[in-house]
Amino acid sequence: MLAFNNDYSHGAHPAVLQALVDTNMEPQPGYGTDAHTERAKQLIREACQAPDADVFFLVGGTQANATVIDMLLAPYEGVVAAETGHVACHEAGAIEFGGHKVLTIPGYEGKMHAEDLENYIQVFYENESYEHTVFPGAVYVSLSTEYGTLYSKAELAAIHAVCQKREIPLFVDGARLAYALAADECDITLPELAQLCDVFYIGGTKCGALCGEAVVFCGMHAPAHPIPRIKQHGALLAKGRLTGVQFEALFTDGLYFEIGRQAIETAQTLRRVLHERGYQFFLETPTNQQFVILPNEDMARIREHASIEYWEKYDDTHTVVRFCTSWATTQEDIDALAAVL
Amino acid sequence: MLAFNNDYSHGAHPAVLQALVDTNMEPQPGYGTDAHTERAKQLIREACQAPDADVFFLVGGTQANATVIDMLLAPYEGVVAAETGHVACHEAGAIEFGGHKVLTIPGYEGKMHAEDLENYIQVFYENESYEHTVFPGAVYVSLSTEYGTLYSKAELAAIHAVCQKREIPLFVDGARLAYALAADECDITLPELAQLCDVFYIGGTKCGALCGEAVVFCGMHAPAHPIPRIKQHGALLAKGRLTGVQFEALFTDGLYFEIGRQAIETAQTLRRVLHERGYQFFLETPTNQQFVILPNEDMARIREHASIEYWEKYDDTHTVVRFCTSWATTQEDIDALAAVL
Amino acid sequence: MLAFNNDYSHGAHPAVLQALVDTNMEPQPGYGTDAHTERAKQLIREACQAPDADVFFLVGGTQANATVIDMLLAPYEGVVAAETGHVACHEAGAIEFGGHKVLTIPGYEGKMHAEDLENYIQVFYENESYEHTVFPGAVYVSLSTEYGTLYSKAELAAIHAVCQKREIPLFVDGARLAYALAADECDITLPELAQLCDVFYIGGTKCGALCGEAVVFCGMHAPAHPIPRIKQHGALLAKGRLTGVQFEALFTDGLYFEIGRQAIETAQTLRRVLHERGYQFFLETPTNQQFVILPNEDMARIREHASIEYWEKYDDTHTVVRFCTSWATTQEDIDALAAVL
Amino acid sequence: MLAFNNDYSHGAHPAVLQALVDTNMEPQPGYGTDAHTERAKQLIREACQAPDADVFFLVGGTQANATVIDMLLAPYEGVVAAETGHVACHEAGAIEFGGHKVLTIPGYEGKMHAEDLENYIQVFYENESYEHTVFPGAVYVSLSTEYGTLYSKAELAAIHAVCQKREIPLFVDGARLAYALAADECDITLPELAQLCDVFYIGGTKCGALCGEAVVFCGMHAPAHPIPRIKQHGALLAKGRLTGVQFEALFTDGLYFEIGRQAIETAQTLRRVLHERGYQFFLETPTNQQFVILPNEDMARIREHASIEYWEKYDDTHTVVRFCTSWATTQEDIDALAAVL
Repeated sequence: MLAFNNDYSHGAHPAVLQALVDTNMEPQPGYGTDAHTERAKQLIREACQAPDADVFFLVGGTQANATVIDMLLAPYEGVVAAETGHVACHEAGAIEFGGHKVLTIPGYEGKMHAEDLENYIQVFYENESYEHTVFPGAVYVSLSTEYGTLYSKAELAAIHAVCQKREIPLFVDGARLAYALAADECDITLPELAQLCDVFYIGGTKCGALCGEAVVFCGMHAPAHPIPRIKQHGALLAKGRLTGVQFEALFTDGLYFEIGRQAIETAQTLRRVLHERGYQFFLETPTNQQFVILPNEDMARIREHASIEYWEKYDDTHTVVRFCTSWATTQEDIDALAAVL
Repeated sequence: MLAFNNDYSHGAHPAVLQALVDTNMEPQPGYGTDAHTERAKQLIREACQAPDADVFFLVGGTQANATVIDMLLAPYEGVVAAETGHVACHEAGAIEFGGHKVLTIPGYEGKMHAEDLENYIQVFYENESYEHTVFPGAVYVSLSTEYGTLYSKAELAAIHAVCQKREIPLFVDGARLAYALAADECDITLPELAQLCDVFYIGGTKCGALCGEAVVFCGMHAPAHPIPRIKQHGALLAKGRLTGVQFEALFTDGLYFEIGRQAIETAQTLRRVLHERGYQFFLETPTNQQFVILPNEDMARIREHASIEYWEKYDDTHTVVRFCTSWATTQEDIDALAAVL
Repeated sequence: MLAFNNDYSHGAHPAVLQALVDTNMEPQPGYGTDAHTERAKQLIREACQAPDADVFFLVGGTQANATVIDMLLAPYEGVVAAETGHVACHEAGAIEFGGHKVLTIPGYEGKMHAEDLENYIQVFYENESYEHTVFPGAVYVSLSTEYGTLYSKAELAAIHAVCQKREIPLFVDGARLAYALAADECDITLPELAQLCDVFYIGGTKCGALCGEAVVFCGMHAPAHPIPRIKQHGALLAKGRLTGVQFEALFTDGLYFEIGRQAIETAQTLRRVLHERGYQFFLETPTNQQFVILPNEDMARIREHASIEYWEKYDDTHTVVRFCTSWATTQEDIDALAAVL
Repeated sequence: MLAFNNDYSHGAHPAVLQALVDTNMEPQPGYGTDAHTERAKQLIREACQAPDADVFFLVGGTQANATVIDMLLAPYEGVVAAETGHVACHEAGAIEFGGHKVLTIPGYEGKMHAEDLENYIQVFYENESYEHTVFPGAVYVSLSTEYGTLYSKAELAAIHAVCQKREIPLFVDGARLAYALAADECDITLPELAQLCDVFYIGGTKCGALCGEAVVFCGMHAPAHPIPRIKQHGALLAKGRLTGVQFEALFTDGLYFEIGRQAIETAQTLRRVLHERGYQFFLETPTNQQFVILPNEDMARIREHASIEYWEKYDDTHTVVRFCTSWATTQEDIDALAAVL
């Protein structure tokens, strides 16, 4: 079965796995105090050109979002997200489980507009009864978005400017950051991203690791006592080395960026194939996710040979599906898929 | 200063206050086990023609919404509301404080449409990944709505039918129920309401009491152990008599309904005055709230003589304001307001 | 039926009720912005000789404890209480509902010892893994305690000194403060109390009001945005006048202190009667609660004529019960009880 | 540096790591729906002789405790634990973060007594005001305990009998289950454990895996919709294969039990060495943790060569420390430690 349904269908990039093998029998202290975690933090600070950043490793995306957002917000605050944001609709209520509301504004192919954000905050404070409503206390965007789209540097800077004016931290979910940074259309570098927001995370799970997301507090320091906050969320690994070793490998010799490039190359081939076969795009993106409208019988037929992701119902006879590539996708996989299509 | 800003600007209806005076020196047991609370429950069951209903008295509207919704929902469930619903936007995150998401669908002058609700739930279950999203576990509507509008019997029945088909309880926020039931356009009686939903509350704070909302579980029994649930929300009065005595008075000799009629009569006069003076309605309603678009200088001038409620900015020179009547509004108040206008 | 089971069995002190009657038809703005609430705050600041104090009115004791403690604590912090503290065992988990742990130390007739508190905090920080445990973030004591006992000025000062050394706020639950301050053995005045802690509340529900507790931030300012915090807990009254008017009355002409004296006088007579009748005290206290060990048949017999409170099982044939007086208890009530005993 | 401070200082058992290597490039579906997870569940059901058990894989111990306890409890319920239980004192408030109180009873070398549990529950229900307190809704024990001690079969059966009588689920934290089952003094087998409780987890992190705990609902089915519950806790791995593959390896050819035996053998040698060197035991246990009272200078000296865990202050000149072995401890390590001692 070909795997095009998501970007987490394989294990770890071989170099990441090898690092786990190489370090396996070293004794290391627990809870993220090991040498590999320390070195991974340092490598990430260097890659971000953010020497003072506070870096923490969490296990997965929903966990990272719920933990970071809870750390950023006062109890009377919520997080502003596009209505299509992962925290708004795909996390089973993990943000609310922590007591916070997700405040939504319109999403345009997965992205929020700076003007909508500015307007939302302005209307909030114009309301004479604003103390009876949830304060906008942080802003959440994803790069790339849940729809595979990208913010341009100007767009992100405009959102950041609104946040700075209102003294609200900007949090960037980088679950698929490798695939964003590697896209031809992306005009943001990792060091620039660290300048354009207050905290972000570098996705590992979907970008070459077995698990793990590296949270980087770049425009602010981590709130007081991050360790108990993280542990309270059930997010502190006893064997912190598990994420430390993997991110040490990902940020050695530019592996993280190489992983991004591999997935983007196969994604470009995939787009060409989908066009050649005449498929109708629901959304064609510069990153590793492509959204296509399929007749239901086509979807069923393809699924006999390749995993593809149900996205949403289009109409009674058509479905929107997602094709994904990852670091593990090969040109042979694309050829095989082309044969199926 | 004339008070037209809301329906909670006076104390209690004189008959309600007299009941507090009359019973003041009776010793009564605490926590809602007193004789007046018991009799109030019985009177409410009779007025609702719901002899098996479980009735509880809470203190205020946000508290009632947060407590009831928390009692209705499993942890993985959220409550569906119109985007303008009180629980969605005017409760400072009280629902989320309890761990639950408010799931929003479009609001039309404060009301949801049964078709939108049905569609929302259908799309939820069609999603192959629905277990990663928040389950619709209850439906919240308000009667009258935050915009003073009313569901017709047919509209509410249609929403209830969707809920019953999906086995989701329907909860009606009746903070202003007296004013809804008394409206000429209202084709729902209290006993009918008890048939048209699973739980609702009869608003006291805005309808003649000093405080208090009577929660009525009519289409279902209260979930297990309501007392600790209520206490956990900080909502259990030691002197439960405070709400018991008031609701006993409100449901003696039809006082609750009389209170509604008084407010509706003055509201009708108010509407006529507003029309006569040529004001532009933002929303003209059959109940005790009227929404008018005022030039900002008019708003400022009126506010020198009468309290009116900021609702939202209309444009740079106009504001939407709310005029409210209540049981305490007199025809003299309307005349005085007319003079100001 | 005589009422000796608790101190909330009657309505409001007549002067408090009269104030509600007198102000009933005044239009006032909502949510605690009315003139009576403002004046009540000012009267309380004067009575406390704390001109800069932030004062808020909440509805009941559990609600006040849960809301204030939540406002004082960071998410990684818990509140330290005696193991018999109300927040530790009689609030149905309201503190934990807000996400916080109650950290317990020994209670001696309801009181904590400063040395135990100091030791608890010292052991906490000596632990090399303290970041894996809940931080002591506030200290809770009650005055009078759940057992009717009193802290002396020296005892409370010692606890306060520990808190100041550790920079942890001290919170005093004054649900029965009137009865504490009025006791002969009490060597603390209200202004002194305001110097001896960081925040406390002046109990209304059990001390002459229909409902209401006045939270006084005296040694610190209220944390940011108290209104949404309070509303989030479902604790913001639309008719804030309800508590404002009552506390205005309670702090006019020394009524609150007079209420305390009345209850203490009847409590002293009660103690004498219990001694005369030869009852065995479980705990004899200087305030309005007395704890007696009764043979079970005596308890049953007394309960035919007077409400008394089950406290705990003593042995298979005896039960500890509580006798309470309040402002509403008369010498005639005591005489009638004496006849029953 | 020798590592005796804990049982999570190395990576994975080589066979577990090899399984990750061998399966790395297989495409597998996400979120625990992969073939390895399915097979691991089946192997665990077989090892437990519990063919109907519901099995889920979580990442770490605190996460497993917080998620399972939250799934077991109604909102008005707390979990009963020994005062030394991990959930009571070493999880940074993760249980309370989920809204639940930990109800504590005495711990004796880490263990609760069935009589204390029975007495606690009986006193709870004897209290006429029990609805104002937190209901005992589940019971938590650990095997082996935080102090390395073991419940005998009779002791656990007695606790289970109390739970069954009261219809409260019994949850066993098996973070160190391999080391418990392998101890000479242990008279409980894995299938017997599955009969003696309602839900337990098989610890992976401390027993040979990089991460992962296998939760087994054996005496009851998992509550409704476990996937969103787990995701809400941030505990659902996108690459569920990570835990599936590891547990598949751990339960192939008895590896999990072999891992336990290795650690127990080195622990026995360690005990002998500590005795030979004349060290004073704080607690000598049949499992992989030994607690010793060290003069502070000895602790400092040993720590130059070997990691050992601070446990608690003994007196001003002595400290209680923990020596741990694990599957990764070799006889050579013990010899080297002996040289240091």
